[in-house]
Amino acid sequence: MRYKCTCQYDGSHYAGWQRQLKQATVQGVIENALAKIYQKHLVIHGASRTDKGVHAYAQVFHFDAPEVIPLDKLAKVINRILPADIYISEVEPETQDFHSRYSCIGKAYVYRIDTGEQPNVFKANYAYFYGKTIALEQLELASRHFIGIHDFKAFMASGSDKENTIREIYDIRFSQVVSQGQTYIEMYIHGSGFLYNMVRIIMGTLLDYWEGRYTEAEMLEAFKSGNRHFFRRTAPACGLYLKETFYASKPAN
Amino acid sequence: MRYKCTCQYDGSHYAGWQRQLKQATVQGVIENALAKIYQKHLVIHGASRTDKGVHAYAQVFHFDAPEVIPLDKLAKVINRILPADIYISEVEPETQDFHSRYSCIGKAYVYRIDTGEQPNVFKANYAYFYGKTIALEQLELASRHFIGIHDFKAFMASGSDKENTIREIYDIRFSQVVSQGQTYIEMYIHGSGFLYNMVRIIMGTLLDYWEGRYTEAEMLEAFKSGNRHFFRRTAPACGLYLKETFYASKPAN
Repeated sequence: MRYKCTCQYDGSHYAGWQRQLKQATVQGVIENALAKIYQKHLVIHGASRTDKGVHAYAQVFHFDAPEVIPLDKLAKVINRILPADIYISEVEPETQDFHSRYSCIGKAYVYRIDTGEQPNVFKANYAYFYGKTIALEQLELASRHFIGIHDFKAFMASGSDKENTIREIYDIRFSQVVSQGQTYIEMYIHGSGFLYNMVRIIMGTLLDYWEGRYTEAEMLEAFKSGNRHFFRRTAPACGLYLKETFYASKPAN
Repeated sequence: MRYKCTCQYDGSHYAGWQRQLKQATVQGVIENALAKIYQKHLVIHGASRTDKGVHAYAQVFHFDAPEVIPLDKLAKVINRILPADIYISEVEPETQDFHSRYSCIGKAYVYRIDTGEQPNVFKANYAYFYGKTIALEQLELASRHFIGIHDFKAFMASGSDKENTIREIYDIRFSQVVSQGQTYIEMYIHGSGFLYNMVRIIMGTLLDYWEGRYTEAEMLEAFKSGNRHFFRRTAPACGLYLKETFYASKPAN
């Protein structure tokens, strides 16, 4: 049986999603839990390879396993083994042509910035401490240039060499969130897919623009020309959350 | 000069306050930061030896150092070296007879319980996931027996052998906190001082009582007789926050 799982995790203590030999990763911890249940190593395939320190509200992965545990019990059985900072929220049966990455039709991320005056030790791993105010409207206006189908080469981390750098961004929205006396700015970004570090570079670029490091025209020109050396700021991993992973809805039988 | 420092920390990543040889502790990390500033090892003295995973909003420590850095810059200089999950919020000059532990006239702790239905991966290190509702009023009523001057021997962790087990509890209050869609119960407890694990055993005891493991009369009897084998539940460290550390106010000169 192919299982599609949705999970959330606090990425603070992990060296990212992807299994590594010597460091604890989310994939590694989940595969170790499955090995205890199925008594053999099963590989899981994640929709996003989130980086060290990046969090997820809804990462999706799939794996193939014998049907030895009733479907409605499986999440509970896995969660009992997992540490408290990783949680399987849903398990669904899938056909063999489903693939967490290739079947995915879009993803949404949230980037959280702490605009409070004083850093809060309890928020250090969960938002980028900026310590200054930001005018939402101005950032949202500037971000509109990135909505639509574009070549996002200028927003790809150096070292990455994806050939097809065209993506579609459906929506970018900024909002202010007040929680327990702290004030945050959140950027919500929804697109067909994202290049390596693309969300964090877009966030860093908008902050550089907000701080007057370049004009809107200069930003736009570098973006359109695909200049990979112009945008140098990658916002820190701790502010990034994989918010949703989208798939085509299944036809009702 | 003797310096009194107030600091806050997220205890999730530390093996407690007290310096240890092989594990990262809050005291160790702060002492290492001071060693970089003063070019020699200085010992700091904390008011509370918080356990692994326990958090602090206001831990107090003192240390002696030459006056090479202006008082109003010192916190900033230390904070620049400290990791983001430890933060010095205040530095005050003190006389040589001040001692963070011996001059302390009281402490307040908060114990946070997550009563939501589903565990939240982002709260796992910051509250005890209980997963059921609690009737605040009933717990608060039962907790009133502990207010006042009592021998708290029954609430001391086994292995501890403090001779004087008499303490005064000034106040215990329960409240409900709703934050980002999560519902918490918080116990606020203020006393002259606390025995080892005392707050967590009081919390565990009240939960055992709430779950019907014993009656109010049985609880009261074991408490009054100082029975150290009756109360077996110690609520997890992750829910505990050192909220305030009190000192006699200085006379105005």
